[in-house]
Amino acid sequence: MTDKTVYEYKQSAKLFERALKVIPSGIYGHQGPAEGCFVPVTAFPFFSERAKGAYFWDVDGNRFIDYMCAYGPNVLGYNDDEVDEAAARQREKGDCITTPSRTMVDFAELLVDTVASANWAFFAKNGGDTTTLAIMTARAHTHRKKIVFFKGYYHGVAPWTQKIDYPGILPEDVANSLYVPWNDYEKLAETFAENKGEIAALISQPYWHGNFMDNILPADGFWRKVRKLCTDSGVMLIIDDVRTGFRLDLAGSDHYFGFEADLICFCKAIANGYNVSALCGKDFLKNTVSGLSYTGSYWLSAVPFAAGIASIKKMHRLDLPRLLNEKGEALARGLVETAKRRGFDLHVSGMPALFYLRLADDDVNGSPSLMLHQRWIAEMVKRGIYVTNHHNHFLNYALSEDDIKTTIEIADHAFAAL
Amino acid sequence: MTDKTVYEYKQSAKLFERALKVIPSGIYGHQGPAEGCFVPVTAFPFFSERAKGAYFWDVDGNRFIDYMCAYGPNVLGYNDDEVDEAAARQREKGDCITTPSRTMVDFAELLVDTVASANWAFFAKNGGDTTTLAIMTARAHTHRKKIVFFKGYYHGVAPWTQKIDYPGILPEDVANSLYVPWNDYEKLAETFAENKGEIAALISQPYWHGNFMDNILPADGFWRKVRKLCTDSGVMLIIDDVRTGFRLDLAGSDHYFGFEADLICFCKAIANGYNVSALCGKDFLKNTVSGLSYTGSYWLSAVPFAAGIASIKKMHRLDLPRLLNEKGEALARGLVETAKRRGFDLHVSGMPALFYLRLADDDVNGSPSLMLHQRWIAEMVKRGIYVTNHHNHFLNYALSEDDIKTTIEIADHAFAAL
Repeated sequence: MTDKTVYEYKQSAKLFERALKVIPSGIYGHQGPAEGCFVPVTAFPFFSERAKGAYFWDVDGNRFIDYMCAYGPNVLGYNDDEVDEAAARQREKGDCITTPSRTMVDFAELLVDTVASANWAFFAKNGGDTTTLAIMTARAHTHRKKIVFFKGYYHGVAPWTQKIDYPGILPEDVANSLYVPWNDYEKLAETFAENKGEIAALISQPYWHGNFMDNILPADGFWRKVRKLCTDSGVMLIIDDVRTGFRLDLAGSDHYFGFEADLICFCKAIANGYNVSALCGKDFLKNTVSGLSYTGSYWLSAVPFAAGIASIKKMHRLDLPRLLNEKGEALARGLVETAKRRGFDLHVSGMPALFYLRLADDDVNGSPSLMLHQRWIAEMVKRGIYVTNHHNHFLNYALSEDDIKTTIEIADHAFAAL
Repeated sequence: MTDKTVYEYKQSAKLFERALKVIPSGIYGHQGPAEGCFVPVTAFPFFSERAKGAYFWDVDGNRFIDYMCAYGPNVLGYNDDEVDEAAARQREKGDCITTPSRTMVDFAELLVDTVASANWAFFAKNGGDTTTLAIMTARAHTHRKKIVFFKGYYHGVAPWTQKIDYPGILPEDVANSLYVPWNDYEKLAETFAENKGEIAALISQPYWHGNFMDNILPADGFWRKVRKLCTDSGVMLIIDDVRTGFRLDLAGSDHYFGFEADLICFCKAIANGYNVSALCGKDFLKNTVSGLSYTGSYWLSAVPFAAGIASIKKMHRLDLPRLLNEKGEALARGLVETAKRRGFDLHVSGMPALFYLRLADDDVNGSPSLMLHQRWIAEMVKRGIYVTNHHNHFLNYALSEDDIKTTIEIADHAFAAL
């Protein structure tokens, strides 16, 4: 395979000019240049025209093998027929109606059957709706204020999740936040001891998947010890499975790592892109959740519930986490070998279904530089492999062996171009 | 027309038994019994099977003329063909994709053209996402902390919007909240003077539409004076148009009342039930919004944008606020006359498109008792008119003259049954 002509983004650029006039930053979130992709923005397409399976096409007609999957929601492939048909059947009947549909009950029952630590489900719209509901539940149940976070966390954009020096955030928003390094059980136990009787919850992702850094799995026995510490201290253990959920284990990522959360937050992969999130939890917290003031305009909508049911049933049938793990391992193996052959040292971290990439050749005194990595990512994207330089990636079922083969071939060209 | 047999809800009750096992409260929000409908819950259907136009059918097959419209989103009629076709065309191409679609830019341009006080639009999912973004923007821009609310407000469920004695809420969450009675300009000016240089924003609905109370329009000149006070004090004026938006004036409810907000929040009627919300605002705040950390998993989804474009274009073409106003006035006139003929004193308050009802015959020393009113509401609902006793109602375009006639006839039977 010869190297292909690199992509151009003329229509994306034109559209972005229009966007800048009527949307703050033009595009918000990770996808926008304001977030600081740390690659020349000219390497990335800004706007998509359509998507199917493992691909999307930008407004210039360029096709990408997409390893971001809409930052998680696309888990079965874009526009999966089975999910879309279930959603369309529900849409014929109705979506956002004054009273909820039977689909809501069906979906809650399916989640309770599927997720090991779930005795109930409460549906909302954003992942952040569920992390906020989880900390409110923990505070209402324990009558305590403090929340422990692992440094480098991401639990949404609500003010309590942000940092004291972020614009629009008050000291009061984060007055009860405690921060501990990931995998540091001693420091965690010390923090619990220093704040005895004051900690409402520990909130954590199932493993460390921060940005701009290699991802880090839990140390041996870490979660078992943390679970015991929380139980002994009367601290609610909240797992934020928004990013990892359904890709490691359909029964929950806590189940994958051998423990049970008190509260677990789902979004993204729960309904293959249909707009729903869910807080699940243990029976002893059900009455507390019932007593909170928490609702939203679209939270009873039936179409996302129908899509969620179809998605979870299909993921079950496929044993999807196993398949995604295999795809991720094959891809990582191929990329690392290709890098090595071209004389580069590519680090792959995190779980295979959500792999994180980093070229380590220009590390400075053991610290990542990321400069070379960013150049490589740019060469990949311009050749039709949508990867990112600062965030973990996501796999989906529609990604084929051929797609993985193509990706590795293009990686070879991208290394050659460096 | 003779009185019809009152409805029974056997299937709703069975389904609710199942719901109670897997969902906190069985149903959350206004629709659930836990919220305290203050009517015998046996009068209400809990679950819907389908919806079309101005009606929904519950799981027992009972049809309702629906005056709640999913608490606002249904503004053109359930499953409006024009909106659904635009959404389906976009869905064929894609919905939740790694990069945004051109539809996002088109929708932002349409909102900026439509809404008088909008120079830009930022899209999210909940109404509460936009009120939270608005206060963060105000705080980041002014470098001040305090927020002024009008008592009886509702701006979503984020902790900063709740009350100090609500479960799960900390004193820190509401430490910077100031409360002023609605329409009380003197008290507002006094509060501004007492907190000079400390108030970031005043957040308000365009008129007072709290629950369990007659709704109250702004006093003559109120908004003009408030607007001037905010400008003179460097306080951002945030209008929460989530409930009222697009039903009073497509250019914004601030425009309807003759002023311009600095920031205005939309949700509900913006896309006829498709899941999207928008914060719009003035140019001088655009850079500040750009600098905030604020995004979500589904916030770039294209289908709700396509639905929003179709909805707003259709509302424009119909001159919808005028039509809803006429329908609301005809309905109110008919209900009040019928009540009077039956010897009852029915109060209708708020704007006709969002009318609030209250039977005043059992007021105690001038204070509403609501007991008689609740009994009347129950008699209405059991006969197929879905109204509520504690909340304003919502009208939609599909509601016909015949539906209004039927509603008034059933109201007559309901009064007779009291």
